[in-house]
Amino acid sequence: LKDADSCFQVTYRLRAKDFAAARAVAHDICIEQTVEFPEDLIKDPFIRSEVFGRVEDLTEEAAETFMAVIRYDNRVAASELTQLLNVLFGNISIKQGIRVERLSLSPEVLSSFQGPGFGRDGLRALLRAEDRPLLGTALKPLGLPVVSLAGMAHEYALGGIDIIKDDHGLTDQPYCPFEERVEACSAAVARAGEQTGENPLYFANVTAPAHRVMERARFARDAGAGGLLVSAGLVGFDTMRLLADEFSLPILFHPALLGSYVTEPTQGISHFVLFGQMARLAGADASIFPSFGGRFSFSLQDCRGIVQGAGVDMGSIRPIFPVPAGGMTLENVPALLDFYGKNVIFLIGGNLHRHGDLTRTCRRFRDMVAGERASG
Amino acid sequence: LKDADSCFQVTYRLRAKDFAAARAVAHDICIEQTVEFPEDLIKDPFIRSEVFGRVEDLTEEAAETFMAVIRYDNRVAASELTQLLNVLFGNISIKQGIRVERLSLSPEVLSSFQGPGFGRDGLRALLRAEDRPLLGTALKPLGLPVVSLAGMAHEYALGGIDIIKDDHGLTDQPYCPFEERVEACSAAVARAGEQTGENPLYFANVTAPAHRVMERARFARDAGAGGLLVSAGLVGFDTMRLLADEFSLPILFHPALLGSYVTEPTQGISHFVLFGQMARLAGADASIFPSFGGRFSFSLQDCRGIVQGAGVDMGSIRPIFPVPAGGMTLENVPALLDFYGKNVIFLIGGNLHRHGDLTRTCRRFRDMVAGERASG
Repeated sequence: LKDADSCFQVTYRLRAKDFAAARAVAHDICIEQTVEFPEDLIKDPFIRSEVFGRVEDLTEEAAETFMAVIRYDNRVAASELTQLLNVLFGNISIKQGIRVERLSLSPEVLSSFQGPGFGRDGLRALLRAEDRPLLGTALKPLGLPVVSLAGMAHEYALGGIDIIKDDHGLTDQPYCPFEERVEACSAAVARAGEQTGENPLYFANVTAPAHRVMERARFARDAGAGGLLVSAGLVGFDTMRLLADEFSLPILFHPALLGSYVTEPTQGISHFVLFGQMARLAGADASIFPSFGGRFSFSLQDCRGIVQGAGVDMGSIRPIFPVPAGGMTLENVPALLDFYGKNVIFLIGGNLHRHGDLTRTCRRFRDMVAGERASG
Repeated sequence: LKDADSCFQVTYRLRAKDFAAARAVAHDICIEQTVEFPEDLIKDPFIRSEVFGRVEDLTEEAAETFMAVIRYDNRVAASELTQLLNVLFGNISIKQGIRVERLSLSPEVLSSFQGPGFGRDGLRALLRAEDRPLLGTALKPLGLPVVSLAGMAHEYALGGIDIIKDDHGLTDQPYCPFEERVEACSAAVARAGEQTGENPLYFANVTAPAHRVMERARFARDAGAGGLLVSAGLVGFDTMRLLADEFSLPILFHPALLGSYVTEPTQGISHFVLFGQMARLAGADASIFPSFGGRFSFSLQDCRGIVQGAGVDMGSIRPIFPVPAGGMTLENVPALLDFYGKNVIFLIGGNLHRHGDLTRTCRRFRDMVAGERASG
C-alpha cells in the first residue's frame, strides 16, 4: 500500500443526482486528470497503481451535492505549479458540476514551493505595524499624468496608508509610462515616510507581457518600490511564483480575469482555494478580493472562505493577508472590522476622494481601523 | 469626435431584467474596465472622453438578454495582450451575467500582435497537405516510459497522422523526463517521415514553470520537434504569444484550466472569442477543444462558434485550425467531416488503441478523412 506522504489530496464538490452518479464522476476525475486514456485499455499495474488518481472518500453533503476526496501521486504533479494546477482542474474545468473545494498537499509537494516570501509576519515587520489592521489604497484613475499620481501617492502615505498600489489597469499607457510612474511614485512614498517616520510601501504593477515582467520587476526594485502588484490571471500563476522567488519584495495578488472560477457555486474553484491556497502556493503575501458590502457579489460565506484559506495550515507555506476591496467606504469600516479582525489589509480606493482633503481622510481611515479616536 | 480607428470594440452579452438595467450594466462596464473610479468624481474632460469606455450600441437579443457594444480607446490597452485581456474582462469577470461575445479590434491594436506564425496555409505547407482535413493524436497515457511513447509516436506517424503531440499532462515527470522524451519522439517521428515520404510533426508540450518555458522550447526546437503544445491557461496567454514570436514553430493551444470561462452561457467568454479570437491574438496556429459527440459538453452551436472565431477576418492575424477533440472515435468521423469540412485538424486519442494494430488503425482514420477508400 502507498505511503500517505507519496500523495496529495484534492476535495471536489460534485453535483450529481445520486450517490452512484457522484461515484462515477469522482472516478472519471481520477482518470481524466491523470492518464486521460480509456481505463479498460490500461493493463500496466504500475500505471494503474501509481498514476491513476484514487477516490479516498465520497460523502453526500446536501441534496444532489457530494464531496469527493481524490488522491494523486506526487510525481504526477512533477514539482511544477503549472502541472499541479493542471492536475487539480485542467481538463475537468471544461465539465459542469465540478468545483475544487480544498487542497491537502503532501510535504513533498509543499517543499516544491517557497510560497510567500514575507507572509503576515514579514509584511508587518516591513511596515512596522505589529498589531493592527493594515491599510491599502490604489493610484487611479487611469488617464492622470505621472505627476498627479505621484502627488496622490504622497498624500496617501502622509495620511498613514501602509500600502499604496498602482491600480491594476495602470501598466504602460502613454499617459503614465511604467518607468516614469514607478520612479516618481516610489520617491513620493519614500519622502512621505521620512516625514511621518513610518514605512509606507509603494507597490508597482508589473503585470505585463511575458518578456517584460521580470524586467519591470527589476526596474521597480531598483527604483525603490516596496512591493509588486501581480494579476496572476493575466500573467499566469507561476509567473507570480517566479517573481516571489526572484525578488525580495512582497507581492499583492490581484484577481483580474479570474472571476469566472468563482461566479458559479457549482463549478470552478472555491474562494478558499483560489484566493487562499493557490495564491499562497504562487507566492502572494496578500490576496485582493471584492468584499461583501462593496459593489461586487461575494457573500459573507465567500469572504469567510478566503480568510480561512489565507490562514489555514499549509506546512512551510506562510499565512497571508486577505485584502477586502471593491467599493469599500469609510462608512462600512466598522462592520468590516467586526468581520475581518486585525489580520487584514483594508483596501479602499475612490471613496477616499469623497471627503475633501485626501491626507486628512486617510488619517481618519487609519484612526478608525487602528481603534484610535479621530484626531481632528 | 473620435476617429473610429482610435478605438476597439467589444460586444458583451448581458443578462438584465429590462433595457434600463442593461444600460446601467453597460455603463458600469465602461467605468469599471477603464478608470475603476467613481464617475462623478472625475471632472477631467480628457479622461472622460479619452479613457472612459463608451456604449456604442445596446440591443435586446432575447428575454432578459442584451447585446452591448462597448468602445475602448486603443491607448487603454497599451499594446499589451495582458492589458487588452484586462480591459476585455479583468474586473467584470467577477460579476455575474456578463459574457464577452466578440472582439472588433482596430488596425492599431491588431498591429501590436503578430498572431499565428503559420496559420492554416502555413501549417498545410509544412505538412504538405493542401486539400484535406489534417489529423492529430496524442502520446499517452502518462506513466509510460519514453521508449514506449517514442515507439507509439513512430507507429502513429507511419499510419499517416500529421501531428503527434504530447498529452498535455506530460511535462517533466520522472517516468518520461522532458528532454529524453522530446529527443526520442522527435527522432521517431522524423524516422517515420523518411519511411513514408510525408512530413509528420511532433509537438512537444512546453507548458512549464515560468522560468522553464523558453528553455524547453529551445530544447524542443534544437531536438527537431516540429511544433509546440501550450496550455495558455496554465502559463498565461501572453507566454504563448511570446513563444509564437520567438520560435519558428507552429503552436497548438490546449484549453486546460480554461473551462470555467465557457461552462455557463450567461457568464465568461464566448467559444468564438476564447478558442478563436483570443487564441489567434496569442499566436496559436490551431485550437484544441472538446467537440460535440465526445465525452465533454460542448454543443453544436459552441463548436460552430469556435469554427467561426478561428476563421473570422482579423486583418493581419491569420486564420487558424479548429481542433475538435475530447473523445472522438473512428465511428463518428463521418458526422464530424460533415460538420467541420476540410479546414480542421481531427484529434483522436485513446480510441485509436481499440482496433488492434495501431499503424493500420491510423491509416484507416487517415483514409476516412481524406475521402479515400481503406487500403487494406
